[in-house]
This record gives sequence, C-alpha cells and structure tokens, in this order.
Amino acid sequence: MQPKYEGTSLETVEWEDGVVKMIDQTRLPQELVILEISDVPTLVAAIRRLSVRGAPAIGVAGAYGVALAVHLHGAAGPALDDAISSLRSARPTAVNLAKMVDRTSALVSEGLERVLDEAHRIRDEELEASVSMGEYGADLADELIGEAAARTMTICNTGGLATVARGTALAVIQTLHERGRLEMALPVETRPLLQGGRLTTWELARMGAPFRLLVDGAGPFLLARGEANLVLAGADRIARNGDVANKIGTFSLALASRHAGVPFVVVAPESTIDMDTPSGAEIEIEDRGAEEVVSVRGVDVALPGVEALNPAFDITPVEFITAIVTDRRIIRPDQGHSPEDVPLGELRYPHPPGVLEVPRR
Amino acid sequence: MQPKYEGTSLETVEWEDGVVKMIDQTRLPQELVILEISDVPTLVAAIRRLSVRGAPAIGVAGAYGVALAVHLHGAAGPALDDAISSLRSARPTAVNLAKMVDRTSALVSEGLERVLDEAHRIRDEELEASVSMGEYGADLADELIGEAAARTMTICNTGGLATVARGTALAVIQTLHERGRLEMALPVETRPLLQGGRLTTWELARMGAPFRLLVDGAGPFLLARGEANLVLAGADRIARNGDVANKIGTFSLALASRHAGVPFVVVAPESTIDMDTPSGAEIEIEDRGAEEVVSVRGVDVALPGVEALNPAFDITPVEFITAIVTDRRIIRPDQGHSPEDVPLGELRYPHPPGVLEVPRR
Repeated sequence: MQPKYEGTSLETVEWEDGVVKMIDQTRLPQELVILEISDVPTLVAAIRRLSVRGAPAIGVAGAYGVALAVHLHGAAGPALDDAISSLRSARPTAVNLAKMVDRTSALVSEGLERVLDEAHRIRDEELEASVSMGEYGADLADELIGEAAARTMTICNTGGLATVARGTALAVIQTLHERGRLEMALPVETRPLLQGGRLTTWELARMGAPFRLLVDGAGPFLLARGEANLVLAGADRIARNGDVANKIGTFSLALASRHAGVPFVVVAPESTIDMDTPSGAEIEIEDRGAEEVVSVRGVDVALPGVEALNPAFDITPVEFITAIVTDRRIIRPDQGHSPEDVPLGELRYPHPPGVLEVPRR
Repeated sequence: MQPKYEGTSLETVEWEDGVVKMIDQTRLPQELVILEISDVPTLVAAIRRLSVRGAPAIGVAGAYGVALAVHLHGAAGPALDDAISSLRSARPTAVNLAKMVDRTSALVSEGLERVLDEAHRIRDEELEASVSMGEYGADLADELIGEAAARTMTICNTGGLATVARGTALAVIQTLHERGRLEMALPVETRPLLQGGRLTTWELARMGAPFRLLVDGAGPFLLARGEANLVLAGADRIARNGDVANKIGTFSLALASRHAGVPFVVVAPESTIDMDTPSGAEIEIEDRGAEEVVSVRGVDVALPGVEALNPAFDITPVEFITAIVTDRRIIRPDQGHSPEDVPLGELRYPHPPGVLEVPRR
C-alpha cells in the first residue's frame, strides 16, 4: 500500500532553461529519445508527427510552446503572433491544444515568468487530475470486483505518455498495482498505430506491473473466457448522454464486456465531457485513410495500394458503459446516471502528507 | 453471370514427381514464391510456420505428405510411422490435417500410387467442395439479404489459398461477385499473421472484386454502423452442436453481427464438422506465443521481450450463428438446427457443361 512514484513518473513534456523537452513517442519502445526543442517550428512539427500525443500532453506542449515563443520573440510583435498561431493549429482536432495555447497566450503581455507559471500550472493540473482519476478508479474497482485480484483489459495508450504522468485508464491500473490489487494487465495492441503494443507495454514495464499483450481480435474472446474481470478505457470525447468516442476497437471490447458480464469503465478528465454534444450520433468519426493500415512502421502488411476503411475512433453507446470515472466524480450509467445528473465532487489531490508524493515543479 | 475461373484457380498445394510444391503464403503479397519440398520434416516445418494454412489446404498438404513419406521410406517401417505421426500432429486445432493423414496412411500398404491417387482425390474433393459451397452460400445470401447488393465482411483468408481453389467463405464472395451481386467486400486484416491483409486482399484483387481493408478492431463498429449486411467466416472445426472454432477475432465479429442484426454465416466443407466433438468447450485452442504478436514481418511493434496471450483461434457459440454452409447442405442454427439433424444434400458440382469449368487433375 506504499505508492512508489519515483521512477514511474514520466517526463513526457518538460521545460528547462528555454528548451521544451519531450519523449519522442514515435521512437518508443525501441529507443528512449528525448527531444530538446528550442524553436517553435520544430515544436509544431513534433506535435504534427505525433512525437507527443494524447490530448492533455499536447495541451501542455502547446502551453510550453507559448513560453518558448515569448522567450524567443518577446512579449509582443508579429513573430510572436505567428508562433502562437502556428502552435494553436498544429493539430486542429485536439481541443486541449487550442485551449491551453489560448490560456497561456492571454498572459504574454505579463512576460515570460507569468506565462511559464501558467504552463507549469497546466502541467500540474493534468498531473493532479491523473492522480485523482487513479484514486477514484481504484476505489470503484474495489466496489465492482470485490476482493478478487484485478485482471484489467485496456486499449490504446492512456498513460503518462498521453498526459504528463500516470494518465487516465492506465492511472487506475497503476494505482491498483501500487495498492497491491493488480494481478494482470491485458493491453490490446491497438491497430493501426499500435499505441497499446508500443507505448502501454513500455509504461507497464516501467511501473513493474504484470501484463500480457493481446492482438485486438483476441480481447473479446478472452473476455468471454473470463481472462479479465475489469475493462478500462480512455475517452476522446464523452457526450452529454454518456456515449463515448474513443480509439477504434473500444466498442468491440464494450460489447464483449457486456456479453461476459464484466464491468466496462471509461476513465477521462472532466475536460473530455462535452455537454454541447447531445449523443454519440453527433460525433464525427475521422477516417485516416489507407496508409497506416497497409503498412506497419514502414513494412507492407497488405497488398500495396489497396484501399481501406480506417475510422480512427468509434462510439460506445452509454448502455454498454458501467461507469465513467473523472478526476472529480464517478458517473454510473449502469445505475441510470449520465454526466448531466451527477454533481462534481472533490479532486482527490493532494493526499495527506507522507501518503503520496508526486514530483512537481 | 459468366463465371471466369481462368487465372483465379490457385495451385496452392501440388504434387509433382516426388516433390510437394506449395505457394509460400508467408511471403505473399510481396513475393509469389513456390516451395519445392522433398522431405517430411521440411513439410512439417512449412505447415507449422504457416507457409501453407487453412484447414482444407493443410489437409491436402498432409495427404501429399503421406505420399512423400511412402515415396521416401517405403510402405512400412519405423521411419514411415515417424513421418506420418509428425505430419498428423503438425498443427492441433484443425481436424482436416489428422483426418486426411489418417485417410491416406490407411492405404500405405497398397503402395505409393494408391496413396497418391487418394491424395489427388482429396484435392479434387476440396475443389468440388469449394464450388459447391460458393453456390450454396450465394443462394443463401439471396435469401438472407433479399435484393440488396451484398456488402460482406470477412476474416482471415478463406480463399483458394486456404483450400486448393476458390475457398470457403471467400468462395461465396467470389460466387456473389460472379453473379453481379457483390457491392463491397470488407476483409479484416486478421492480426497477428495478417492473412486478411496479406492474402485475402491478394485474392480479391485477382478476382477483380471491390473491397476495402479494415483493422480488426474496426469490424464490430462498422457492423454497428451498417457498413455490411452479411458476415462470412470460415471454420477450423465445427462441433456437433454447431459451435465453431475459427481464427481469433471471429467471435468478436459474431457478437457484433448479433448486435447489429446482420446474418453471421459460417462456410466450411463437411470435413470440418467433427461429430466426435460435442461442443466448442472440448476444442483445444492453440496459444502460439508472443513472437508473432510483438513483431510484424521482422519489425518490432511492441516492447521487445514482452509476454503475450496469443490464442490462434476462438470459439463462436452456435447461438450467434445464423447458418452453416457446407458443400452438401445449409444448416440453420437460427431455425433451431444443428449438424446432427440436417441431412446431407447434393454436391453442387459438376455444373451443367459450359457453365463452369474448374481445372482438375
């Protein structure tokens, strides 16, 4: 029951003396390369090519990017404006990026220190949210599976690499592991981009958790066979009625969870809940084209030139979701609740002194 | 409506002058390599590493393997017995291999020519069965989807490469295409070995059928979205009660078909039905280890050295199966029928002269 944060906290995105440092996630797990970025166009390119990914993490990268722009170009002027504008639009679909660039750029007239303070605050908020989601989620797991050791299936990467530390669904798995409650983590590899195979295995290994990797098609059958007693997924967007958009393949696990009688839990920060979207039907699904289906890390895996249908996300209807865990509350669709009717609770951070020590700057 | 068999018949497995020849399916679609195998351990290794795969095709390979064993070791003796025993157990899940090895090895005392005749007969029977399955399946499709153009989702490779020509589920798709009834084929890539992406796209392209490739995790969601109106899968073994063992990921599509109200049809020759296996619970599922999960065609796609759960097959319970199409009958579990209570009908081969010409030897 002793949380061990040392060595498990990832420095996904950092600021150090006028340099934005980040793990190059395209090189994982073969190489741990830290990019040191000291100009804005290089940072924009790194965001575009997914060296940093995950909505919270690119929000933090954008915030540090604004600090970098002020550091290089001063508190006003066309060079600063251009830099901020290019950061803001580096990835148009990720709402956190624009949000955090706006929040920091509103302060540029107050100078670098003020902007940097705000960027650090954004980073700390994401970290606090991750800790809080982990605590809420692990408590919920106790309620859902009782005394049984947790055997958790999960999809994509929802760890510190996608946030700044600990993550969302993977934060719950990490907290269960720290509490001595985790028997086995079962990440699915998550084609086409293999975030589960490449990134989640790397994070699970770093936290010393027991795990076995699965191909995506094996998840539903292994649920039917009783290999997992809890499924944990992240979310890209949660609609007002509780429908969840997440990485392609999530729906398949939700359906199989229902068939197997295994709880299906979505873990995401409050910022992911979009009260302006009534239901999943209104969420547009991006088709990312054939290229990432027909080749894997540069190797052809299909007849070259074939066409594909490649939806990047799917929609899991709320009726398949047992619970939605955020940094501020637990919403129970299985008890008839939706995001509309559950009030915000406490952020589960900071903890009593001595119980939990998370590195902050 | 003119069947065009020329150029679409694959020489998946052949016998020529004491040599078993086969397309090396591990090299497709990048290279069309013909293996020429003149000893039994090499043949066993080729079956094990899936150079030849698909239950009917490995049955034919096993039969030619017995001929090869007699050719090398004569009609009796411990070397022959060892060779036959190693062939019989090269892969555990598909029943055809053991069955066809038994059928040919029962004749070894009558000499090579008799064994070889039987092996050729097995090959011809598979070919006839493929034609017949295509006809039965396409007629059933008309019944299940009415006048709608067929949008068929399928898994793994069930074409000529898996049998000796035309195939099982893919034979139905080919027949629908030849009848002008196919609007779209949607193969899932079928990790870990990507038989859908590598082999089915190659066969669909050869037959000139319209298709789009999917990652495995996208199939269930696209079914829920109405992208397909018919799911066609092969089978490695069908139990007496109608439970089906097939490539991992099949269960996931069956579950999603049920959710979407889309017919789920299994297509396999009579030889796949194993009346000695009461239900899917008695079917051994081969775990093929981590290697094929953590790397794709030699490229690492996960943290090196990680462990995996890698069931090669899954079990689809009969209650999710609309119909089982064989070369001799259509069994309708959706109408309460099982393999036990549906009598054999006619083989739909040969066809009236001039309508269909399939190469035979």
